[in-house]
Amino acid sequence: METAQQFRDLVARMKNVEEAINVIFWDLRTGCPKKGVEQRAEVVGMLSGDLFKLGTSEEMGRYLEELSAPDTLASLDPITRASVLERKKEYDRSKKIPADKYQAYVTLTSKSEFAWQEAKKNNDFNAFAPYLEQIVESLKEFVEIWGYEEDKYDALVQQYEPEMTARQLDALFGPLRERTVELVKRIGAKEQVERGFLNQQFPEEKQREFSHYILKQLGYDFDAGRLDPSAHPFMIGLNPGDVRVTTRYYEHDLQMALFATIHECGHALYEQNVSSELNGTFLATGASMGLHESQSRFWENAVGRSKEFWERFYGDLQANYPGQFDDVPMEAFYKAVNLVEPSLVRVEADELTYNLHIMIRYEIEKDLINGVIEVKDLPAVWEAKFEEYLGIKPDNHANGVLQDIHWTSGAFGYFPTYTLGNIYAAQLEAAMKQQLPNYKDKVREGDFSEILGWMTENVHRHGKALSPREIMKKATGEELNAAPLIAYLEEKYKTVYGL
Amino acid sequence: METAQQFRDLVARMKNVEEAINVIFWDLRTGCPKKGVEQRAEVVGMLSGDLFKLGTSEEMGRYLEELSAPDTLASLDPITRASVLERKKEYDRSKKIPADKYQAYVTLTSKSEFAWQEAKKNNDFNAFAPYLEQIVESLKEFVEIWGYEEDKYDALVQQYEPEMTARQLDALFGPLRERTVELVKRIGAKEQVERGFLNQQFPEEKQREFSHYILKQLGYDFDAGRLDPSAHPFMIGLNPGDVRVTTRYYEHDLQMALFATIHECGHALYEQNVSSELNGTFLATGASMGLHESQSRFWENAVGRSKEFWERFYGDLQANYPGQFDDVPMEAFYKAVNLVEPSLVRVEADELTYNLHIMIRYEIEKDLINGVIEVKDLPAVWEAKFEEYLGIKPDNHANGVLQDIHWTSGAFGYFPTYTLGNIYAAQLEAAMKQQLPNYKDKVREGDFSEILGWMTENVHRHGKALSPREIMKKATGEELNAAPLIAYLEEKYKTVYGL
Repeated sequence: METAQQFRDLVARMKNVEEAINVIFWDLRTGCPKKGVEQRAEVVGMLSGDLFKLGTSEEMGRYLEELSAPDTLASLDPITRASVLERKKEYDRSKKIPADKYQAYVTLTSKSEFAWQEAKKNNDFNAFAPYLEQIVESLKEFVEIWGYEEDKYDALVQQYEPEMTARQLDALFGPLRERTVELVKRIGAKEQVERGFLNQQFPEEKQREFSHYILKQLGYDFDAGRLDPSAHPFMIGLNPGDVRVTTRYYEHDLQMALFATIHECGHALYEQNVSSELNGTFLATGASMGLHESQSRFWENAVGRSKEFWERFYGDLQANYPGQFDDVPMEAFYKAVNLVEPSLVRVEADELTYNLHIMIRYEIEKDLINGVIEVKDLPAVWEAKFEEYLGIKPDNHANGVLQDIHWTSGAFGYFPTYTLGNIYAAQLEAAMKQQLPNYKDKVREGDFSEILGWMTENVHRHGKALSPREIMKKATGEELNAAPLIAYLEEKYKTVYGL
Repeated sequence: METAQQFRDLVARMKNVEEAINVIFWDLRTGCPKKGVEQRAEVVGMLSGDLFKLGTSEEMGRYLEELSAPDTLASLDPITRASVLERKKEYDRSKKIPADKYQAYVTLTSKSEFAWQEAKKNNDFNAFAPYLEQIVESLKEFVEIWGYEEDKYDALVQQYEPEMTARQLDALFGPLRERTVELVKRIGAKEQVERGFLNQQFPEEKQREFSHYILKQLGYDFDAGRLDPSAHPFMIGLNPGDVRVTTRYYEHDLQMALFATIHECGHALYEQNVSSELNGTFLATGASMGLHESQSRFWENAVGRSKEFWERFYGDLQANYPGQFDDVPMEAFYKAVNLVEPSLVRVEADELTYNLHIMIRYEIEKDLINGVIEVKDLPAVWEAKFEEYLGIKPDNHANGVLQDIHWTSGAFGYFPTYTLGNIYAAQLEAAMKQQLPNYKDKVREGDFSEILGWMTENVHRHGKALSPREIMKKATGEELNAAPLIAYLEEKYKTVYGL
């Protein structure tokens, strides 16, 4: 099939351009000299433009039309078929919005980001509100153009999580919210655990060594990646043989680099273990933002904050910081890294309350898109929900409604994928426990090969060739549900707070 | 002028593609994980192909034809005019060779590189000779297509050094060779200087700190660059605000990293100080390979190996390696880093004998292209010339005729630029001494701002907008000649060896 080959060649070309952009992106965030940044932005702009043009080209349109005809599609090999469907979705999405509208929207979001930074600095919600209003109006319009079955929000969340709907999110989040609010209250009534020892001084060089050590132990392949410091930790898969992670070192906070490293390692293990058959296609990545997040959360929280993990590694940690943890029993360390405390800022929230931060945002963005609330209502709604779910209120907009960048760039529908990640992770862990009965022993031994093998077999290798729903169904035998996450959280806080 | 603007846009686009390639190139040589390299090579291949296509496109041909018409050319602003001439040269050069011939040549040189690596490993000149024969034949053919006035070699050297000719190289190199051979003999009759203290153990971390320190002192702008380790030291100008250098740390050789750092710093100071008016054109770089090399050699040798430099920095070096240089007087250190000793391998040669290594290669490649000698004669010719100029002979091909990569890739005409760099550097230093009478005092004070300012004013800022000959004439008021280099060398070895 000549067209199939032409299609694959064009996609491979797009992947090459994307890889070039990503090398530059990584470099910009890990040490590009500041005077070089302005010119480098031109290069990124040009390559991004090229990538967009290739993906929406007449050529691409022709290949997709021909290859997605039912009979032709059925005759393709499974990977080409999945790649055609993946590209068709992107193509349709991009082509449906008229070019002038899209251009105006891009201009709006870039102005908006600048206005948001100023507004946040000046604690001035009204200065940002007009931008947000225009963004919401644009998205309402896009949603109508893209189409949706039931809820306008579906079209937004499906940018990041295929097949996900507001109805299903409500069903998943409802019980989770209820039980979480209750857990937070019960924990609030208990004596708080000690964690001052996490805020001693820890030299960056020692933290760096320990981060490298832990990555190696978890199965991160340093021949196919590297670890560097950056202002915000991230994982970036340049190609399957080059999946890089970054972390951030705070000299007075042991948790920051340690758990950011394990979190990004989870993302990286996903990308390092995608089947090589998917190379050269846009399927060589995670199936969705939520499923990607399940891997980072699984390794960070289910493994990295488990008692079994620290039974194995606490001695190494003590040895890495001589004298600093002599008087801290492992049990106390375990409790400290699992401390729960309602707080105002999402990125500083603990494992339990984090989901409440997400749900508040989800409810607000859904209501905005559906016209249930308006942008001007935001500060009051925000405050009311924080009070209701967490029992605290922001004292300014910077640690309240203006804290996140997401809405600024129009990324409505993104937030739920964080909590979906926790839900997926708990469901996967529960299934894994069934199939690897000695799972906890393996963590206690620091031998992660079978655990990583299970995740690779059930999740990683499929890349984006299957939908998250298909992957979860095959891996767990069940439909999506929050029960395993609720059980996991209750179990954890029983041991930490003696609930 | 609409065409002029279209031309500038196309050139700026090419510069962007080149910058993306160079970011990837830098990354590949400073820490790209090994499993990512194969796929990254595809990306580089694609972008390099794009760059070649843009430079030889019908569009480019049309712009160049229109803009290089004498009246039009005269009406352009000076930078666009220089850019048109620069691009036209590249365009003509590329277009003249028929595409199939060029493709066959590219294939030949990549096979040749592999064959050379094997041949070098196996000390087997005959295994490599057939490749070299084909390369020489191809170049003879190209030279006829490109055209030349007097000597076939002119067309080759002018790829790297505009306007240079074999006739002028002979005129420059002849007296230099004679005096150098004589100097080497006179030094050989003297007692050799001590240098064992340069081969103590020097921890990489300490060397790294000192390299950063020296770069800063010399005026290298760390907001517009960075220093990293790599297997082979290099400088790469990504854009004028991002000019990176690398060095190589040997724990038992203090000179390696130290002088490689200063050498690459010289290249970087050139690129960091090109006039910003040249941004977005291929003029924003050095005027030629030789003039670029003049800057690295000036800082490495004329400054970095001078007694005045160590009068200022020897105390810092002693402090950086506590106890290791307590018993070594500055004078002894100065002599050690200027030691002369005939040796077989170019990249390990000292400042004086290095030029003989170059001249041997120049004479051989010129004779090959002109059919005076044949490839099969090479080992014997090589041996005879080493014996004549340096008084030593290789004991195998790996440290003899097979040591360099240059011929393997067809880079005939490149070697002379190394010695031209030394000639230019000495001429520039002599002119600077006239104009900055306290030049040596400034080095002794470690205050390089006036020296760097002089080089920027006279060399750097012009970029490639003037030819090396124009730059040298304006800067020194004289035609190219080797007398200042000869005087510099005689003066240096008088102080080092008491000649």
